[in-house]
Amino acid sequence: MNAVKDLNAASSGPQELLPTLNWRFEFGSYVQTRHFLDQMADLSKREGYYPNVSFGKTYVNISIDAEGRAELTERNSRFTGEMEALAATART
Amino acid sequence: MNAVKDLNAASSGPQELLPTLNWRFEFGSYVQTRHFLDQMADLSKREGYYPNVSFGKTYVNISIDAEGRAELTERNSRFTGEMEALAATART
Repeated sequence: MNAVKDLNAASSGPQELLPTLNWRFEFGSYVQTRHFLDQMADLSKREGYYPNVSFGKTYVNISIDAEGRAELTERNSRFTGEMEALAATART
Repeated sequence: MNAVKDLNAASSGPQELLPTLNWRFEFGSYVQTRHFLDQMADLSKREGYYPNVSFGKTYVNISIDAEGRAELTERNSRFTGEMEALAATART
């Protein structure tokens, strides 16, 4: 019964890794930056996913590598959508 | 009266920038990582100094560039000493 699957396995070329995605969010104040970071921490715990984050007083960089993207896609996770929504509200 | 000072000014060679200092702190859990980040945020607000921070689930990288080092030295700030103490207690 696995004939079709084997066919695919035999013909699959080199694995092409998805590129890393990087977001940069700028904020008006450290209070806003920190509010966003706190909400991101809660989102990470809810989704069980912890992207690499770097930040300074009024910016936050978030990067999700190929492995992370595959994991989030597999779980049909809304992580990136919620992250972007959080950034938008943190700036208001 | 400024003779000596001028002498120094005339003979000072190219400004040699202090190298950037990087710390990497590893933690046993995300709860410890977050506890440390929260305390670092309070330290930053107290000292009015915001280093570049990057973190994942169980590590935090902190870097203080030449400009930051000069600023902290000028203010005789205990930022780095307190930061290292916070990291030690966050791991217990």
